[in-house]
Amino acid sequence: MVDMLSLDSNDERYVAELADYVAIPSVSRDADRETMLRAAHWLVGKLDFADPRIVETGGHPAVVGEWLGAPGAPTVLIYGHYDVQPTGDLAEWITPPFELAVEDGRLRGRGVTDDKGPVYIALEVVRQFIAQDGKLPLNVRFLFEGEEEIGSPNLPSYVQTHAEELAADLVISADGAMWRPSEPSLAISSKGLLALDIEVTGANRDLHSGRYGGTVANPVHALAQILASLHHPDGRIAVAGFSDGIPPLNDAERAEIAAVPFEDDAYMAELGLSELFGQPGLSTLERLWTRPTLEVNGIAGGGSYTVIPHRAAAHVTCRLVPGQDPAEVAAAVEKHVLAQRVSGVHVAVTFEKGAVPAYTIAPDHPAIRAARQALTDVYPGQDVLLARIAGTLPATVLFEETLGAKTLFFSFSTADELLHAPNEFLRIPRLREGMRAWEGLLRLLADGEHRLTR
Amino acid sequence: MVDMLSLDSNDERYVAELADYVAIPSVSRDADRETMLRAAHWLVGKLDFADPRIVETGGHPAVVGEWLGAPGAPTVLIYGHYDVQPTGDLAEWITPPFELAVEDGRLRGRGVTDDKGPVYIALEVVRQFIAQDGKLPLNVRFLFEGEEEIGSPNLPSYVQTHAEELAADLVISADGAMWRPSEPSLAISSKGLLALDIEVTGANRDLHSGRYGGTVANPVHALAQILASLHHPDGRIAVAGFSDGIPPLNDAERAEIAAVPFEDDAYMAELGLSELFGQPGLSTLERLWTRPTLEVNGIAGGGSYTVIPHRAAAHVTCRLVPGQDPAEVAAAVEKHVLAQRVSGVHVAVTFEKGAVPAYTIAPDHPAIRAARQALTDVYPGQDVLLARIAGTLPATVLFEETLGAKTLFFSFSTADELLHAPNEFLRIPRLREGMRAWEGLLRLLADGEHRLTR
Repeated sequence: MVDMLSLDSNDERYVAELADYVAIPSVSRDADRETMLRAAHWLVGKLDFADPRIVETGGHPAVVGEWLGAPGAPTVLIYGHYDVQPTGDLAEWITPPFELAVEDGRLRGRGVTDDKGPVYIALEVVRQFIAQDGKLPLNVRFLFEGEEEIGSPNLPSYVQTHAEELAADLVISADGAMWRPSEPSLAISSKGLLALDIEVTGANRDLHSGRYGGTVANPVHALAQILASLHHPDGRIAVAGFSDGIPPLNDAERAEIAAVPFEDDAYMAELGLSELFGQPGLSTLERLWTRPTLEVNGIAGGGSYTVIPHRAAAHVTCRLVPGQDPAEVAAAVEKHVLAQRVSGVHVAVTFEKGAVPAYTIAPDHPAIRAARQALTDVYPGQDVLLARIAGTLPATVLFEETLGAKTLFFSFSTADELLHAPNEFLRIPRLREGMRAWEGLLRLLADGEHRLTR
Repeated sequence: MVDMLSLDSNDERYVAELADYVAIPSVSRDADRETMLRAAHWLVGKLDFADPRIVETGGHPAVVGEWLGAPGAPTVLIYGHYDVQPTGDLAEWITPPFELAVEDGRLRGRGVTDDKGPVYIALEVVRQFIAQDGKLPLNVRFLFEGEEEIGSPNLPSYVQTHAEELAADLVISADGAMWRPSEPSLAISSKGLLALDIEVTGANRDLHSGRYGGTVANPVHALAQILASLHHPDGRIAVAGFSDGIPPLNDAERAEIAAVPFEDDAYMAELGLSELFGQPGLSTLERLWTRPTLEVNGIAGGGSYTVIPHRAAAHVTCRLVPGQDPAEVAAAVEKHVLAQRVSGVHVAVTFEKGAVPAYTIAPDHPAIRAARQALTDVYPGQDVLLARIAGTLPATVLFEETLGAKTLFFSFSTADELLHAPNEFLRIPRLREGMRAWEGLLRLLADGEHRLTR
């Protein structure tokens, strides 16, 4: 359902092209190879000026390409993904997820804002450079993966073994999202991630509580005791060594965060809460942006009948901030869990592979300065917010470690656009705004005071 | 698959008749009315001497009848059930669950030991009395329900509204199970039951831990804190008032329990445990038989992904012992849970209907004395164990409150015969032993030193 009446002619073309792309149900969790290849081929069609190739990764293929016609100029690697999240419950969608809908200044469809629209913006800009100037102001490489929504399991090995082909002075990610619709923002840090499972086992089978009650330990009781020990009642993490190495917030940082408009009341209202919670003495935004977390994401054991379960398990993730070493944090958590006095049960802690540390890019990095300028040019009179991401962007650490390049997030998605949820959408004005900003960014990185250091 | 070669002629008849009964898949959870009625009609066929009726209860029908041809003699109500548990995974059954199999001195099939075989034993005895003597030594009423395996939801109202028709000096239950195969046993107490759910809720939806982590309370953390507070680390229940009213174990009781052969090592080996657990200072059997429990049967919330769940819940059951009042225990648990200091979440406690107190029958009650004698006559030289049931038998309390009659459990099922599990079985010798014991019991209750008080 594309209602063209509200669009001007260029918007019409953008929407029509994006509709073709969104129509490919490239759900990395479920889709067959043929469907994923259709999405990859759509990208190849857009990259005709850049020697595009569909390359094998061990999982869903990636799309790479490059235009290196600016000798002496810096090189950027544009990163994004062509896969999308599952639709979730189709009944919750106002319109079919793979038919792009235009309504009230928004485009609705699975993947439209994560990450097909933002990738489209970047591709359209480089194509217009080539079409109008016959060249780009700097060298550009492209890497679009098909497994971002399933945790990029094959990206590390691909990047490691193709580091030379991907070499760049900066990665610009078309994935990510601005923090809020009300002001432009740039992310200068993201948290690391450490995931683990705690499993408590008792007898060799579930036991009838009316036949064994009072004689054996209950794994749910033991797990509750362990989990309760992980935090102080006021919300502080109680694991010794967990926060070692985190520098205290300095006055400048606190002032910078305090200057960001943020209303606890509105935040609570949106979440249906009458009370926020977390480490005392810090503002909500300070906790969200600068403090590590240790969160029990899930717990399961037994059922609603008279059983003594023989197993109970919890999934835990820690979001790490700069200064924390994932391996040291893992050791601290394991030591804490195994030190709890629980009798009659076996406790096992298993860490998931792929823990990543936090990522930061300095506020005065040329890429941040250039991006800030590009955004200011598109949104005159608006402060560009330097935001921190409470989530984790493993690719940043991968690119830094493998290519030696920082990553600039330059997406025109916004965090409230129902990413991963039914009725995912993208605000239509973001298409043109994004294109103007990308054009400015590429020019600024190539030349002038924000020129990228090679 | 009935292998007749190992049976003598009477056993052959018993097995063939029981096979017909087991062949009716009267699974109260799933079966249609027609199937349940077939099982009820099978009972009616056995009760031709007792004016049998199929009566409506609001759920699956019950079967009642009575033979009251012994004026001046006491009256007993024989209770049992014709419904069975679901089969569970058919792949786990060695032979089809509704085809009675004979193998190694055992009968295998769903319901054969719970409760079709034990009911058959009782019916066969009263039929043989009628066939041989033309009468019974005392008056007998019958009540067989079709909903025992789903918690007897309609039994209380049926018994309450038909108390006169069911009036008896003693209820003899053909349901239940002897404690162990190694010695005959009689149950002199069973625990009460109180069930509740604890639900902790936070925000109005699950939240991405990378977008909200550190700002809101996590219901799993709060629930863990609440659950951990319910017990001391050594296993004692930490809820103030929970154990009020429980008389301390006296020396005689401790000596009686200590005399019961029980090996912790064998118990642990069977459960795959290297350590037992529970209130310090008591033996395993003392804890199992005489202490109340507060058991978290199940817990659930969130999942194995980076979420702050908005809800976590636990199902809890308490097994109560004599002296505890279910309403007072419920109040104590609720007060304790709601008194825990958890911030930023809502805590709700919901109690299930139908809490029941513990049940006891005095060891010197005429029914226990008669049953002990009857068992000694069948198993000469073996001590009859006075066991306590750590499980709950709500019908006992119902019969006591409604009919003013104690309940004697006189089942020839054994607790190890895979009740409720795949490959449920009944030891074949129990059929004849049970019949001889029932015959003796009815005679002893009618006359002599153990004669039942009217």
